[in-house]
Amino acid sequence: MIIGKVINRVVSTRKYEELQGYKLLVIQPCYGSADFFVAADNIGAGEGEYVLVSTGEAVQHALTKHAPIDAIVVGILDHEPTI
Amino acid sequence: MIIGKVINRVVSTRKYEELQGYKLLVIQPCYGSADFFVAADNIGAGEGEYVLVSTGEAVQHALTKHAPIDAIVVGILDHEPTI
Amino acid sequence: MIIGKVINRVVSTRKYEELQGYKLLVIQPCYGSADFFVAADNIGAGEGEYVLVSTGEAVQHALTKHAPIDAIVVGILDHEPTI
Amino acid sequence: MIIGKVINRVVSTRKYEELQGYKLLVIQPCYGSADFFVAADNIGAGEGEYVLVSTGEAVQHALTKHAPIDAIVVGILDHEPTI
Amino acid sequence: MIIGKVINRVVSTRKYEELQGYKLLVIQPCYGSADFFVAADNIGAGEGEYVLVSTGEAVQHALTKHAPIDAIVVGILDHEPTI
Repeated sequence: MIIGKVINRVVSTRKYEELQGYKLLVIQPCYGSADFFVAADNIGAGEGEYVLVSTGEAVQHALTKHAPIDAIVVGILDHEPTI
Repeated sequence: MIIGKVINRVVSTRKYEELQGYKLLVIQPCYGSADFFVAADNIGAGEGEYVLVSTGEAVQHALTKHAPIDAIVVGILDHEPTI
Repeated sequence: MIIGKVINRVVSTRKYEELQGYKLLVIQPCYGSADFFVAADNIGAGEGEYVLVSTGEAVQHALTKHAPIDAIVVGILDHEPTI
Repeated sequence: MIIGKVINRVVSTRKYEELQGYKLLVIQPCYGSADFFVAADNIGAGEGEYVLVSTGEAVQHALTKHAPIDAIVVGILDHEPTI
Repeated sequence: MIIGKVINRVVSTRKYEELQGYKLLVIQPCYGSADFFVAADNIGAGEGEYVLVSTGEAVQHALTKHAPIDAIVVGILDHEPTI
């Protein structure tokens, strides 16, 4: 999983209906210089919070129904990571 | 998911028949210096638009029938991303 | 998907039998500085041609029988990509 | 698989319940300059130990029940890697 | 697939039992500057040999029984790659 900081969110009106109901958050990875990416969220992560993001096929196991989502917030960190 | 800009499209006459009916768009990732790549599209993304692209196994959940496609446009952003 | 140029092919006599019947092509990605990699091919891509390669689980949907192949040529481009 | 060193662990109280019972370890890859990442662990890897981490769909085959986990410690190395 | 050179092997006594019976080889990718990684092997690749490695979900199709393995040697090259 990737630790990242929630930067903001993007809005897409024309999208697959399976994406309805998820916030689409722009995530800045905390370690290294990896690129920003977008993760779906339905556990209420807010701007500035540090989150744990799962990617790939594992995402489907976080969904109640399959959707074309390849990154999802699976946890919100209690504290800012120290490294 | 990756946010990218639609640059142009590529044409492939000799291809797997499961790819028929999808536009093949060259996408420029918006964040960082990631390489251009090709995503399938069937929601009408046009040149110059900013799109949300899912990759990997998640793609299959956007298709009505399995196909050897590993990246697909799942949404069109309402606005140019601010970051 | 990745756009790449077919450089040459590699030969492996000792291999999983599920790989029999596929040419193993060394592919040079066209965009950026990504590393060369090997893709299976069974649609007749030739040296110097520009091809569209799918990777990951999507590959299995191009095969008539599951095989430990993680990259496959799914299309041959009509023209050299302009970008 | 990736060889990495266990740096520390992160705590997330608000998380998917499928992640309960796993330690969430920050891993520093041993080779190259790849970014730190987080792997789940349930075989008792401790801080400073060198571990073997599997990523992607393979992770599910280490779980007794599917979970949105994309990296897991599958082995603890007997010795510090020599290269 | 990735072409790599077998550097050495790592030993892990405390590991998932599904990994028993596979050699764990440290692989140096031949192209570019990608990081070393570990691949399972059960076709007898030896130190110094050039091998073809599959990664991701494709690996499962090389196994007789599912295991948390995300990279496996699927072929041994007849010759050192020329590029």
